[in-house]
Amino acid sequence: MKKVVIAPDSFKGTMSSIEVCNIVESGIKDLLPEMDVIKVPIADGGEGTVDAFLTAIGGEKVNVNAKGPHFYDIEAFYGILPDRETAVIEMAAASGLSLAGENKNPCLTTSYGTGQLIADALERGCIKIILGIGGSATNDGGIGMAAALGVKFLDETGNEIPLNGGGLERLHRIDISNLNKRLESCKITVACDVDNPLCGPNGASHVFGPQKGADPDMVKLLDRNLKHYSEDLNKEFGIQVENIPGTGAAGGVAVSLLAFTNCTIRKGIGIVLDTVDFDRLIEGADLIITGEGKIDGQSLRGKVPVGIAERALRKNIPVIAIVGSIGDGADEVYRHGIGAVFSTCRNTITFEEAKLTCRENLYKTVENVIRFYQMFRKS
Amino acid sequence: MKKVVIAPDSFKGTMSSIEVCNIVESGIKDLLPEMDVIKVPIADGGEGTVDAFLTAIGGEKVNVNAKGPHFYDIEAFYGILPDRETAVIEMAAASGLSLAGENKNPCLTTSYGTGQLIADALERGCIKIILGIGGSATNDGGIGMAAALGVKFLDETGNEIPLNGGGLERLHRIDISNLNKRLESCKITVACDVDNPLCGPNGASHVFGPQKGADPDMVKLLDRNLKHYSEDLNKEFGIQVENIPGTGAAGGVAVSLLAFTNCTIRKGIGIVLDTVDFDRLIEGADLIITGEGKIDGQSLRGKVPVGIAERALRKNIPVIAIVGSIGDGADEVYRHGIGAVFSTCRNTITFEEAKLTCRENLYKTVENVIRFYQMFRKS
Repeated sequence: MKKVVIAPDSFKGTMSSIEVCNIVESGIKDLLPEMDVIKVPIADGGEGTVDAFLTAIGGEKVNVNAKGPHFYDIEAFYGILPDRETAVIEMAAASGLSLAGENKNPCLTTSYGTGQLIADALERGCIKIILGIGGSATNDGGIGMAAALGVKFLDETGNEIPLNGGGLERLHRIDISNLNKRLESCKITVACDVDNPLCGPNGASHVFGPQKGADPDMVKLLDRNLKHYSEDLNKEFGIQVENIPGTGAAGGVAVSLLAFTNCTIRKGIGIVLDTVDFDRLIEGADLIITGEGKIDGQSLRGKVPVGIAERALRKNIPVIAIVGSIGDGADEVYRHGIGAVFSTCRNTITFEEAKLTCRENLYKTVENVIRFYQMFRKS
Repeated sequence: MKKVVIAPDSFKGTMSSIEVCNIVESGIKDLLPEMDVIKVPIADGGEGTVDAFLTAIGGEKVNVNAKGPHFYDIEAFYGILPDRETAVIEMAAASGLSLAGENKNPCLTTSYGTGQLIADALERGCIKIILGIGGSATNDGGIGMAAALGVKFLDETGNEIPLNGGGLERLHRIDISNLNKRLESCKITVACDVDNPLCGPNGASHVFGPQKGADPDMVKLLDRNLKHYSEDLNKEFGIQVENIPGTGAAGGVAVSLLAFTNCTIRKGIGIVLDTVDFDRLIEGADLIITGEGKIDGQSLRGKVPVGIAERALRKNIPVIAIVGSIGDGADEVYRHGIGAVFSTCRNTITFEEAKLTCRENLYKTVENVIRFYQMFRKS
């Protein structure tokens, strides 16, 4: 074995994919210092997406003053990849729930700052944007973002409405005459791992509203407002977005993207693997180590380890998964190219206890896997 | 890889060493049906010791009517090994805590039945006895056992005292004139994994009395009685047993064995490995799989996995341990010849939950270890 590729998802609730990469790397290098180790932390579209891309293939981090979810000025950031024409933006960096602090209220929060990051990337000449929309604080259908890109949202009297989930109630007319011209030559790819539609019981407001601070009445209001917005878009521009899978993510931000930009919604794993040229990176690898917080029957549905294994299978490279826990139905992953699965659990403890020891336990799990490998490696 | 030896301890509280052997064997054979698998369940001296020996090297199980811990008649058993001259007896089979049921009282319980098993083995011509003393219900210094072998324990008036922990209080004289003559040509090896002395704060009554049903006052009485017994033995036969490590096990049974028989106290693992001719069994093995319920820093002190690894190291055979849980200080075992350690834990659960899934989880852990092996086996 000469080359190992480490390509894990984050371990939700405990470690980012970059942390996982670094710990697995130490576990390998401490025993096999001569090993060529390639790290491909898989971005999930939420917090840490920019860093994951920059770790995987390099690039530059750009700091930008932008509006936070409550319209206060904050310092946000995005990444420009080595091709100098692709920007990676995470919505969480400007419009994230963690920026809202205690003050969670999806009637009041805006995606405006995310639009500013896009505008900055356009200004710098980027013609491709990868937009991760996880971890947002907003339920504004993306009107804040669109406003930062030149769209005007007006009420019956011609005044601009508040650029948030509550403001949508007063929307009467949409003016795109000042839409940022650079958007015409820019392709936006939205990384989105959920299939929810915009409205209704499986929509943005009902499913994700509560975790952003909405009470039951607010959920109903927000759902009605998004419905109203999608009807306006249909009336004014003849586009039907409401039932497109993924429009329910991130408070409906994809609706505005679909309406005003050249945008595609894709699973995060596919975007990452294409962007980092994964097939080339794994060329000549003897082993790929993937992983996620919990592997189970659900892992067959577009999640990271199986996505990685499908690529590896084509090149006949063995894959193992190291995971926080192994749930029901995990045996199914063998048929999708994952050779073996190891859990970092070492004793009977609670999830809260596991959080405290997860880094050490991940290291030790890797250590034992490598020690076992050393017993039987081809000489 | 053509030959694997499975030599685990029991997983305390969940599975016997035989169960562990059988599950590990299925995990291997389901993937590598051509594999030569040798099972050596390691007896720990407690319940299951006889079956473990019989599984490892064959032999015959002998059923015997004997007195239980409360002097009721029960059907007990022991094993005779293929050499026809070695008996394996577990004290738990006649004088075990599980036989006492709800009625736990170490003032009243007797080791008499264990003596009956020894007498039966002598009668059948056995000249070696391996005696496992784990899991006993008694604190009688072994006087019940000795009485079944012909020793008389008398009070001041020359009447026999009750053959239990409480009865010792009245002991005045010991008459060995009717001691079973066959004991002279029999060698008894006591399997004992604790170092406790007979009396005092680390002695039989204080350390093990409570789990056998003694309250604090009873503990003091039992401790005093054992002290009295050891002083009597010293006075009448000039033997000093009180401070010999291991005399504190099984309610002091080893004291009577040392006084009236040719007896040696040894660690269980050493007895098993010699008896089954472990060095010959592992000849030509490509891998040894050992294990125990919990591996940790304590595992260096005479416990099974390290004992196995020391034998394997001499023949340069790789060893892995599959364990229920991995505790503090487990890394030390690498230096003693254990190449890698895998836990059967697969997610964050309690010990009670783990009990329910331990068999399935052990199987799956073996399955993944073998799957990983298959990726890298020498071709």
